[in-house]
Amino acid sequence: MIVVKKISDVREAIKAQKAQGKTIGLVPTMGYLHEGHLSLVKKARENSDFVCASVFVNPIQFGPNEDYNKYPRDIERDIKLLEENGCDLVFIPSVEEMYPNERLTTVSVIKITNKLCGAYRPGHFDGVCTVVTKLFNIFTPDIAVFGQKDAQQVAVIKKMVEDLNIPVKIIASPIVRDKDGLALSSRNVYLSDDERHAALILNKSLKEAEKILKSGERNAENIISRVKNILESEPLCKIQYVSCVHPDTLEDLTAINDKALIAIACYIGNTRLIDNLLWSVDV
Amino acid sequence: MIVVKKISDVREAIKAQKAQGKTIGLVPTMGYLHEGHLSLVKKARENSDFVCASVFVNPIQFGPNEDYNKYPRDIERDIKLLEENGCDLVFIPSVEEMYPNERLTTVSVIKITNKLCGAYRPGHFDGVCTVVTKLFNIFTPDIAVFGQKDAQQVAVIKKMVEDLNIPVKIIASPIVRDKDGLALSSRNVYLSDDERHAALILNKSLKEAEKILKSGERNAENIISRVKNILESEPLCKIQYVSCVHPDTLEDLTAINDKALIAIACYIGNTRLIDNLLWSVDV
Repeated sequence: MIVVKKISDVREAIKAQKAQGKTIGLVPTMGYLHEGHLSLVKKARENSDFVCASVFVNPIQFGPNEDYNKYPRDIERDIKLLEENGCDLVFIPSVEEMYPNERLTTVSVIKITNKLCGAYRPGHFDGVCTVVTKLFNIFTPDIAVFGQKDAQQVAVIKKMVEDLNIPVKIIASPIVRDKDGLALSSRNVYLSDDERHAALILNKSLKEAEKILKSGERNAENIISRVKNILESEPLCKIQYVSCVHPDTLEDLTAINDKALIAIACYIGNTRLIDNLLWSVDV
Repeated sequence: MIVVKKISDVREAIKAQKAQGKTIGLVPTMGYLHEGHLSLVKKARENSDFVCASVFVNPIQFGPNEDYNKYPRDIERDIKLLEENGCDLVFIPSVEEMYPNERLTTVSVIKITNKLCGAYRPGHFDGVCTVVTKLFNIFTPDIAVFGQKDAQQVAVIKKMVEDLNIPVKIIASPIVRDKDGLALSSRNVYLSDDERHAALILNKSLKEAEKILKSGERNAENIISRVKNILESEPLCKIQYVSCVHPDTLEDLTAINDKALIAIACYIGNTRLIDNLLWSVDV
């Protein structure tokens, strides 16, 4: 596996691969990798010849009161895991490499960024869209893989790619869960044992949503209250939002037709966790 | 010359050229071409193997009270001129082709867009940056050529390319003038005979600025007042701005060192014209 820190080295490596007719896959990450990330690498492997990952904790997508400084980092472990999982190149830039001069340019997506997580994290998706655009321009990948766990991020990036005619195919990869059902997240490391146990309520509430959807419930409000009731039964859990939206437009649904995204964000202690259920009639 | 209206046809043509190892040059235009545009095509020819132009009057870069609807158009003539001047492909999309769905994504550059023309055309450069990003993603050119006449546009696009790591080399091409000195512009067609004559004052004022710069004047304020005095001597000319800035950062200069951009915008009757002098000690 090639390990590079400079944009120019990425460009050189990609150029050599493209000259051999290889397709390029990209998995952008913020590091502190878990099985969820590694499933993205595997997905990229299935869909491209030369699999690249980036590990960059992007400062501009964190709000002033968010966890940029304490966001978990373990770059040696990340390199080892990527190598073991068939990644061909990893790009680990410094903040200075990504933002060398005063940045004046921002890529913004409106409307679908004002709800769900975006409503509570102003500027977050501007930071995400800007850095993803930069990574796409650096790697010029054929495909890029994102985790479905951040369902809003997937919807926002797909819309950005459509609006700006970015020649990259976006692939969303399913949520990976621990054996007990907790959605994997780098932020799970913040949880105490009690909180770790309490956090299972997120998946439990979505399981219940799935169950009543399967039994024929189509009223979004009923599903939302059922999920909220379950979450509220856990004393350590503080709900930020529970929403039932269309997975592409993120518009709030009243009645559910062919598909729906039930998305939740909760604080377990001081740790903010998200989870979701992507439901469609075919499932 | 290939004439295409669909993005997919552009991609196909570009792919075929790249497969042959050809480099791609792009000249984005709003059509109603004059010798200024054709000099850009020539410049692209000198710097790439396969020369492409786009002709698209981009609605999102016009303000509500600007001349989008009456902007001059003559697509048959444009095609003929491009073909005669060695262009290999011209892309003439409809508004629906470029903006098929509700657009939620914008590429914005701050600070350097708030002065000169940007101060009088709110949202203009958001529209420019967004459409240029789209065209870059559609053509994936190696180089793109822009006219130095819109000096702010050149500075803004260069900054956008730097900030977003867009893999396109931006080339600025010098202003082309009519025999009498008037900078070529598609909007010159709006001018009556009297206005056409009055419009010469723009170039005359810049000639004077050049003269006093050559004679050693380094005080920006003195140069600006000299230019303003000359422009004000023409009754049909109404000054919008006269600025002396750094050509890259567009920051106002007080003392001129190695280089300066003297940029002016005036109304001649109802027609807004711009012109500028890019001055450096080497000239």
